[in-house]
Amino acid sequence: MSTFTRRSALKVGAFASLAAAQGLVQRSIAAPAPGAASAATAGENAQSGKGVTRTLARYIVNARYEDLPANVRKEGTRTLLNWIGVAVGGSHHETVDRAVAALTPFSGPAQAHLLGRKERFDIMNAAFLNGVASHIFDYDDTHLKTIIHPAGPVTSALLALSEYHPISGREFLNALVLGVETECRIGNAVYPNHYDVGWHITGTAGVFGAAAAAGKVLGLTEQQMVWALGLAASQPVGLRESFGSMNKSFNPGRAASNGLFAALLAAKDYTSSDGMIEAKRGWANAISTKQDYREITEGLGQRYEAALNTYKPFACGIVIHPAIDAAIQLRNEYKLTADQIASIDLKVNPLVIELTGKKTPRIGLEGKFSVYHSVAVAIIEGAAGERQYSDRAVQDPAVIALRDRVTATVVPSVKPEQVDMTITLKDGRKLHKFIEHAIGSLEVPMTDKQLETKFLDLVSGILPDAQVRRLIDACWQVETLKNAGDIATLGAVQG
Amino acid sequence: MSTFTRRSALKVGAFASLAAAQGLVQRSIAAPAPGAASAATAGENAQSGKGVTRTLARYIVNARYEDLPANVRKEGTRTLLNWIGVAVGGSHHETVDRAVAALTPFSGPAQAHLLGRKERFDIMNAAFLNGVASHIFDYDDTHLKTIIHPAGPVTSALLALSEYHPISGREFLNALVLGVETECRIGNAVYPNHYDVGWHITGTAGVFGAAAAAGKVLGLTEQQMVWALGLAASQPVGLRESFGSMNKSFNPGRAASNGLFAALLAAKDYTSSDGMIEAKRGWANAISTKQDYREITEGLGQRYEAALNTYKPFACGIVIHPAIDAAIQLRNEYKLTADQIASIDLKVNPLVIELTGKKTPRIGLEGKFSVYHSVAVAIIEGAAGERQYSDRAVQDPAVIALRDRVTATVVPSVKPEQVDMTITLKDGRKLHKFIEHAIGSLEVPMTDKQLETKFLDLVSGILPDAQVRRLIDACWQVETLKNAGDIATLGAVQG
Repeated sequence: MSTFTRRSALKVGAFASLAAAQGLVQRSIAAPAPGAASAATAGENAQSGKGVTRTLARYIVNARYEDLPANVRKEGTRTLLNWIGVAVGGSHHETVDRAVAALTPFSGPAQAHLLGRKERFDIMNAAFLNGVASHIFDYDDTHLKTIIHPAGPVTSALLALSEYHPISGREFLNALVLGVETECRIGNAVYPNHYDVGWHITGTAGVFGAAAAAGKVLGLTEQQMVWALGLAASQPVGLRESFGSMNKSFNPGRAASNGLFAALLAAKDYTSSDGMIEAKRGWANAISTKQDYREITEGLGQRYEAALNTYKPFACGIVIHPAIDAAIQLRNEYKLTADQIASIDLKVNPLVIELTGKKTPRIGLEGKFSVYHSVAVAIIEGAAGERQYSDRAVQDPAVIALRDRVTATVVPSVKPEQVDMTITLKDGRKLHKFIEHAIGSLEVPMTDKQLETKFLDLVSGILPDAQVRRLIDACWQVETLKNAGDIATLGAVQG
Repeated sequence: MSTFTRRSALKVGAFASLAAAQGLVQRSIAAPAPGAASAATAGENAQSGKGVTRTLARYIVNARYEDLPANVRKEGTRTLLNWIGVAVGGSHHETVDRAVAALTPFSGPAQAHLLGRKERFDIMNAAFLNGVASHIFDYDDTHLKTIIHPAGPVTSALLALSEYHPISGREFLNALVLGVETECRIGNAVYPNHYDVGWHITGTAGVFGAAAAAGKVLGLTEQQMVWALGLAASQPVGLRESFGSMNKSFNPGRAASNGLFAALLAAKDYTSSDGMIEAKRGWANAISTKQDYREITEGLGQRYEAALNTYKPFACGIVIHPAIDAAIQLRNEYKLTADQIASIDLKVNPLVIELTGKKTPRIGLEGKFSVYHSVAVAIIEGAAGERQYSDRAVQDPAVIALRDRVTATVVPSVKPEQVDMTITLKDGRKLHKFIEHAIGSLEVPMTDKQLETKFLDLVSGILPDAQVRRLIDACWQVETLKNAGDIATLGAVQG
């Protein structure tokens, strides 16, 4: 051991690294001021030849609400409504109960609300806890190009901060869009390699989105925003191995509080390097084998990733959404009841059976992995929300009886986003439905009405109906709010 | 754009990932209890075939103070003393001032002290701030095999927690050793590849050390410790690009608060996966191209990385420590004064000139990159601490006059840890000193007396002398303390 140690200790590399680390860190003592800190890392940035971090920071600092296209403002509003719904909906899961119990003794002043609950926390803990709640059902929004769930990190940080640092609804929406834009563009630059190796991209890219949104609200200068992004780059969150545990919803929550933490420090001139995203020993090179920086800097203010957000209509993996969509459409078109149906035959992509082929689910959770249960319950109840994946629904004799009459045949030519459904009625009629793109996709987005229905299904029983109505209105009319923090008040249990 | 989006959205990979993510996260709803969560991820662990995380967790949970060899307890005590000194020494740097200003409005109850200061913060903010202070001068401890600065993440979290959750000095020392052991072993498993690609290993491995130490204090069960390590794996901190800015000292501080955060959540049964370190999509595979898991699990309780900690005697890169060591030795042996000296000639490894070849430094900071200044000031003042790298020292005419009589010749056969010094006196005598290993190396460790001298140099002017004496005694006698938190009280400005 001692020999091995000596050998290692003598490695020139180790000495060089030590000396370099020593030397480099010392520069901050002489050059902590914006200009100086900038100069301190000019070398590294020159090598990278990009200035990606600064270009992005400059855009975030200068982008105005008035510059947002109508469709982007609209999608930002839908992103907000959907996120509030899933956050309130998940707020009483034991995952949140445990986190609240763990953090209560250490929270600062009661500055911010927990959605769906009565507790108040300091803004960093509130951002974390609301972020956790919003991802528990994995029913939140999705940027399909990267599989980032954009609202969790960004809106959790933004809403909590807006309670401490009052801003108008327009400022709120602008910051939300900029945050989503930031995380999704950075995600595009490293996806899919970064995700494939095991990083949970919602937490690793999300922290940048939270820092951007919070930094925008705090009115950071360009240099401060560069530092905020640098401190965010220093705090990536989440690995895919944690999927299957409470650690998965931990990730967007921690990305939110980490990004907020970064912005608050930068606002006091706590410095970072100028090239943390693109530098040789910066974020993108350390965390991914792919770096396409054009995804970050090209078309800023012209093309908007924030306009590409999607929302899940059904509380299960999207691979079975086409089948559920077909079932609900046929049900509604023909006013179908279970007792009319002799059989339901699906032609599906192989992934559907591979991921959701469970024929006899016993508990609600298993129902999410059963295309058979999903189709049956959708026919009977006309929906596939959290309630349709409860133990009650999965164990309902009527659902089981219909489920057993559902068959699925793998047809490789059927794409993952497609399904071909034929329902044979007891009277011999055959009803057919082919789905090219399921509801909730980019091609067939959920309507505002459908988003409201999902929202109501998630929050009912947690907040009083009258308050829910005001909450929904506040989200739709966020651009008219004098104080965006009102959304947090309306989203929490009063008193 | 729309086309590209559609193409991406249709990627089977995206669908599979989404469905898998959806499916896996849902398991936590059915199986949040220890046993169940363990079962939930048994598959992944079986695939990885290692159980590295669990093996490490079991060791941390079961390791007792009584099992620690005397040399390990002794090195742990030295690690504590050195860390307290650098933390107090850095406590009034503007880096800390800015962080304190940023976090004060959000801190929880005044549960823990800031070393060298009068403010009190909740334990997570205190852990962060003390960790930042301790790394500012890059004068803290070093595990040479990995270049990890072990005490920053571990002791920052441990000391703050010990103020909230009282423990004896023996429990404190045991937790400190286990934390250092955890981070250094995990660091060994991925070094050097992980460091070379750009990660600041003190912050990425350090978070495990902080979680282990805090979890030990909290009395976590084996399963809870597995979760704490998993939540720690989800929060790596720091990139080397940040060296040269305040972001570098941010990293050990944030690693401390992240590890503490992980342990506190795990203590309330907030779950993670069972194989976060070793699983296919876990920490080591995502963050490094090298994974040597034997470094983590082999010889636990038999060989101790914590016994290999080293301390810097001089406040500069270790590449010039041999030259300073030689200068101080000759000075003391021959009672040398500058006016006796005609010339000082060094034979050095190429790295010395490459990294510290600045002939005419103008400010204190630049002095750290000048072997010429370092040797001259060491002869005149008999030391090379922070004071010898002040503007005052670098601009001292006497130092400059001697500095100009120092020459350094590159001799490739001279190893980085060696130096060959010849001092020619004006009376013609030639004094010679060859350094095989400089003071502060594993082979020639600093004595306890030298550690005390370094400590006194760092804290004088910040804490009253009487309090400093009691603080030093409390560190040396940590094993006798009834309440380890007393160290924090003695290390802070009273009232």
